[in-house]
Amino acid sequence: MLLLMTDYGWQDPYVGQVKAVLATHAPGVAVIDLLHAVPDFNPHAGAHLLAALCRDLPAGAVVLAVVDPGVGGPRAAVVVEADGRFFVGPDNGLLSVLAGRAQAARIWRIDWRPQPCSDSFHGRDLFAPIAGWIAAGDFPADKHTPVAELEVRFDTAELPRILYIDHYGNAWSGIRGGIAEPGSNVEVKGHVLPWRRVFVEAGKGEAFWHVNSSGLIEIAVNRGSAAEKLGLKVGDPVRLQGAPETQVH
Amino acid sequence: MLLLMTDYGWQDPYVGQVKAVLATHAPGVAVIDLLHAVPDFNPHAGAHLLAALCRDLPAGAVVLAVVDPGVGGPRAAVVVEADGRFFVGPDNGLLSVLAGRAQAARIWRIDWRPQPCSDSFHGRDLFAPIAGWIAAGDFPADKHTPVAELEVRFDTAELPRILYIDHYGNAWSGIRGGIAEPGSNVEVKGHVLPWRRVFVEAGKGEAFWHVNSSGLIEIAVNRGSAAEKLGLKVGDPVRLQGAPETQVH
Amino acid sequence: MLLLMTDYGWQDPYVGQVKAVLATHAPGVAVIDLLHAVPDFNPHAGAHLLAALCRDLPAGAVVLAVVDPGVGGPRAAVVVEADGRFFVGPDNGLLSVLAGRAQAARIWRIDWRPQPCSDSFHGRDLFAPIAGWIAAGDFPADKHTPVAELEVRFDTAELPRILYIDHYGNAWSGIRGGIAEPGSNVEVKGHVLPWRRVFVEAGKGEAFWHVNSSGLIEIAVNRGSAAEKLGLKVGDPVRLQGAPETQVH
Repeated sequence: MLLLMTDYGWQDPYVGQVKAVLATHAPGVAVIDLLHAVPDFNPHAGAHLLAALCRDLPAGAVVLAVVDPGVGGPRAAVVVEADGRFFVGPDNGLLSVLAGRAQAARIWRIDWRPQPCSDSFHGRDLFAPIAGWIAAGDFPADKHTPVAELEVRFDTAELPRILYIDHYGNAWSGIRGGIAEPGSNVEVKGHVLPWRRVFVEAGKGEAFWHVNSSGLIEIAVNRGSAAEKLGLKVGDPVRLQGAPETQVH
Repeated sequence: MLLLMTDYGWQDPYVGQVKAVLATHAPGVAVIDLLHAVPDFNPHAGAHLLAALCRDLPAGAVVLAVVDPGVGGPRAAVVVEADGRFFVGPDNGLLSVLAGRAQAARIWRIDWRPQPCSDSFHGRDLFAPIAGWIAAGDFPADKHTPVAELEVRFDTAELPRILYIDHYGNAWSGIRGGIAEPGSNVEVKGHVLPWRRVFVEAGKGEAFWHVNSSGLIEIAVNRGSAAEKLGLKVGDPVRLQGAPETQVH
Repeated sequence: MLLLMTDYGWQDPYVGQVKAVLATHAPGVAVIDLLHAVPDFNPHAGAHLLAALCRDLPAGAVVLAVVDPGVGGPRAAVVVEADGRFFVGPDNGLLSVLAGRAQAARIWRIDWRPQPCSDSFHGRDLFAPIAGWIAAGDFPADKHTPVAELEVRFDTAELPRILYIDHYGNAWSGIRGGIAEPGSNVEVKGHVLPWRRVFVEAGKGEAFWHVNSSGLIEIAVNRGSAAEKLGLKVGDPVRLQGAPETQVH
């Protein structure tokens, strides 16, 4: 199973061009679009989204993750094996949260460069062949160098900000639900919001927080858009009342 | 063949998370995105869209259909076999139009719940495993109870409203074309529109109605947007002149 | 490998309906969405995009290409084999740029019509079965007539206009990079833009041109939207300074 997480968007040809390479290198392997709407040029939000979205992937899954504003510059390319799953992408922090949270992680720097290789599309030209080979069961040892650490590493603790706003208007934070008390409140943009276990327990149009299906604290409105009602955007601070320690960054 | 029809939208990770489960339960089965833009929280429009979109599916096809504002509440989960095709989704009316129109239908209530099961994403946690098992040829009889009827049923007659507006601006109604006379007119938002067999028979910029490729009466403009030109939105009433009986709801 | 390039958009059911037909005719063949955001009703831009996007496809690849405002009218349907790759679509110029640039091309007119066949969706009813059969290795010779030329042919030289704007706001022109000197400037909408090899060589917010990953001259802004900053839209003229001959159309 090959999964893609990028900021390439849906409407452009970039995802399809990556898939044409994957189909050549890993024929017969299912390729799944996990997310192509990571906030543009934002590996920090991407790193927390990736960690949340991939926590339940089966062993052997391969993830091609690209949010890469530094493409064409000196940043390295890497493969991370984290608890049996493989991640291929730029060494700009994007893979660092999941690597730091893994029980067991191994890291390789990708030294190989294809000929030709574009300056602006390493997702297609560099990361896709590597991911395809790994997914096809052929880890290309001659193209990698084991390294002890990623060069760019983000804090693996909670990121108390809005990471992502979905098309319903639900706002995902970077705070995992496990640290929150069901009865407590969440503050965002001056609003203090109560907890509801599930949408249908909130009144129609009521804003609340809950632990979403990817394990993150999410701000939502029953049958409405929390982003619109509360004026939320990616990057806005989120504060969990009663858990101040985890909020300091 | 596994098909998905939801209101999950394209840009969010929800579709990919469903597909990761399907790839685990039904490896090698083609998974096809039929529609993820069912009007949000609107099982009624969704029920008529589903019936229209699935009329030509081959026997054995499995459809995962989710428009589920009541997720986490008491609504049941069901499987419908309609003329040899299988539909998995919530018992909130979404599957009722196609079930009511089928020549032969069987219904099962899904009693099984996975552990763990999120409160807000039954598409991934409950419906996807069931749909995957069925698509893989393994109908999980121990997880279902045959029932005589769906709990929530919409009228299976025509729905004389705008159901869906596509990206060109064509507006799909819930009225099937079979009941319309080619020479007659259609009224919408105070406009009386003539019939044209096909786009190129209309003048450039002319508004007209035709029977679209899913068998529904559609309001269109040649090389333009009917929604913009006529101010149409989902839910607007559509009236077929000369067929008053079918218009009363 | 089957690839799709259309103006069907992402959110509508059209792509999924095409894929359901392909899955029936070519089970097990990977189907890849290359682009569904060709500017609506614009086979001319589509022809140059198709030629650029398909230049690196492996032999044997089959492309279903549909931008078809004349559907239901007298335009013919064709198959083009260009340098070992197959293209199926309308004979309205869409396939003519890649055919004209190919070292070896063969053309067939599709005489067959399925029963039933919708008047408005030949992508699903006519082109998809043909493309599926070819991808499955069964070229349906009884359904085609070899012809010497396409009926509608666009100039195969550079198209010095904006063809496409991606979701980052990068603007693709129809001018191939091979004819441009790295040191020269590009003019668009009264702006004179310098060349940068790669995004990170431009200042943050600086507008520049480069040869993009599909081989075309692209107007871009480092970590910003060129379309927004420079007010670009599809169709705007682009002029390469120092190469006036190629600009006259």
